[in-house]
Amino acid sequence: MAEKKKDKSALYVRKGVKPSSAGDDAVKRFQKAKRPKVPVSEYVKGILAGDMGMLSQAITLVESSLPEHKEDAVKIVEQCLEHSGNSIRIGITGVPGAGKSTFIESLGSYLTKQGRKLAVLAIDASSHKTGGSILGDKTRMENLAADPNAYIRPSPSAGSLGGVARKTRETIILCEAAGYDTVFVETVGVGQSEIAAHSMVDFFLLLMIAGAGDELQGIKRGIMEMADALIINKADGTNMRRAERAKSIYENTLNLFPPKESGWTPKILTCSAIKGYGIERVWNNIMEYKDNTTENNYFADNRSSQAIYWMYETINEDLRNNFYKDPAICEKLSSLEQKVKEGKISPFKAAGELLDQYIK
Amino acid sequence: MAEKKKDKSALYVRKGVKPSSAGDDAVKRFQKAKRPKVPVSEYVKGILAGDMGMLSQAITLVESSLPEHKEDAVKIVEQCLEHSGNSIRIGITGVPGAGKSTFIESLGSYLTKQGRKLAVLAIDASSHKTGGSILGDKTRMENLAADPNAYIRPSPSAGSLGGVARKTRETIILCEAAGYDTVFVETVGVGQSEIAAHSMVDFFLLLMIAGAGDELQGIKRGIMEMADALIINKADGTNMRRAERAKSIYENTLNLFPPKESGWTPKILTCSAIKGYGIERVWNNIMEYKDNTTENNYFADNRSSQAIYWMYETINEDLRNNFYKDPAICEKLSSLEQKVKEGKISPFKAAGELLDQYIK
Repeated sequence: MAEKKKDKSALYVRKGVKPSSAGDDAVKRFQKAKRPKVPVSEYVKGILAGDMGMLSQAITLVESSLPEHKEDAVKIVEQCLEHSGNSIRIGITGVPGAGKSTFIESLGSYLTKQGRKLAVLAIDASSHKTGGSILGDKTRMENLAADPNAYIRPSPSAGSLGGVARKTRETIILCEAAGYDTVFVETVGVGQSEIAAHSMVDFFLLLMIAGAGDELQGIKRGIMEMADALIINKADGTNMRRAERAKSIYENTLNLFPPKESGWTPKILTCSAIKGYGIERVWNNIMEYKDNTTENNYFADNRSSQAIYWMYETINEDLRNNFYKDPAICEKLSSLEQKVKEGKISPFKAAGELLDQYIK
Repeated sequence: MAEKKKDKSALYVRKGVKPSSAGDDAVKRFQKAKRPKVPVSEYVKGILAGDMGMLSQAITLVESSLPEHKEDAVKIVEQCLEHSGNSIRIGITGVPGAGKSTFIESLGSYLTKQGRKLAVLAIDASSHKTGGSILGDKTRMENLAADPNAYIRPSPSAGSLGGVARKTRETIILCEAAGYDTVFVETVGVGQSEIAAHSMVDFFLLLMIAGAGDELQGIKRGIMEMADALIINKADGTNMRRAERAKSIYENTLNLFPPKESGWTPKILTCSAIKGYGIERVWNNIMEYKDNTTENNYFADNRSSQAIYWMYETINEDLRNNFYKDPAICEKLSSLEQKVKEGKISPFKAAGELLDQYIK
């Protein structure tokens, strides 16, 4: 499934066709077709010229697990690096049913109308398990999908969360080099993806709705504390009063959290994405954050810290990958894990045996 | 400083003298002295017989970074493993000024009076930076230090948090094999240590006080969500009303958190450790947790998961250690980190260069 999805997005790139409208036959034909190799310099030229097709193809290389693709991808990212960074990166997550797609459509369209260029990316590490990516079906963002100033890219589908997140991190660089000055990174709200997204964005936004008093039940621990703004969506019609009540409950909860390193105090805002109410206020809040943190240097410091974090994450992830993919380790691992589980061997002895094996 | 502390605890072991009363000269003499090597079987025999001196010496081996000590330590832990596990492991953390030492003294003395044998361990990864371990000064737990049914051991002082925590995890096995049926793991409340402690205990307890409405300011994000009980200490005299008010604030906050995998609903209890009020209720709450989670199998399942977690943690920590201690890596790392920070090279390229170097 993961394989199929990846090829679908590659097809999208070449043909300019949306994945949702691409038939399985076309995918198979594409899988078999050989493409002439495009030199790295061509990719970079295309990206810097804002060519959406070249951008998409380059991202496909970034997402690929083939060694020859990886090599080119590293070079492309490297050459785009100095042209990147001139953007605001916004993480968006939400409880199920909070209307995330509608919110992204609404805020996104508001921004492109103001002349901004928007890239909507996603991190969904669960997609290769559940077989469905949060952004696989682009029909859910019809307006943005048709908007020439918006670029929507589904979540990379292959591999571990670390791998998926790292590809998204590299994709941000490419999008910024292509002139996108606003980057959304959407996640599904399951916890791990949010931590990854938080480590690559400037501003992290949590979308909620006014529920039955147990609104936070769907939110994984820690996500609320990461948020720079809590947005209560669907605050319209008969829901308005409930939204205001929820707002005051959340305000009390937020007051209990320790102050943020950024010096920023998260606000709780209500909006109705479908009616367009409150969307401008959300954006003004993000701009206020940018101004404040630019002034106190947190904005730039945080980006530097994030870059260093990603260097170490990449190293650690690769060290682990090399280890756990080693055939000798694979062979021994599950029986040792079973012994540890049953208390027949200590976790430390088991680890030691595996490490000895690996060094051999 | 870290080195000095380690030797102090070794001295304590040999002479039966408390570290706080050991002079620097004695430490130096001990550093130079050669001890005859005790065979592994002697250590194990001593531990199983409940010999506190042998237990302490074995823990010193576990904490040592010398390869020959490590080898013996692994064997000792392995042979103690089947005699371990028959205990309740309780993590205890708290905000500064919450009266953690007094609380541990009070609850601990209550337990030893009931015939239980108590081991008090600690994880304090900051101790090698600040130069002071939370349990370095045992005078703060005078009663327990003199109690024949209590064993107090300061935090291992060397190395990274991962290393420190792993040593504590192994020490738990040794203490249980020595007949300690209650294990406290104390932490300082700075975040990372709590996550480590949480991964090795059955029950996690957060100690607080009634403050000025901003009680949670001192608590790092996520710690409150890990707690199986919130204890508001110093609920005596004029403080009693404030404690009750704090309790109801916390209750509202806890209600907003998602339910726990254990099926357990954390309670908020007030107590006065210094007066002995409410201590029995705290203990009953822990026993109720044990009964409930034994019945729904979470207790055993959680311990299995923790063991497997520690196998992977140990592997990953060792993989990282081998990498970052490699001389060629050390040489290149800081200049590459600087380049990443300045945006001159992408985190991924930098990681790739280091990994290539390492494989060579």
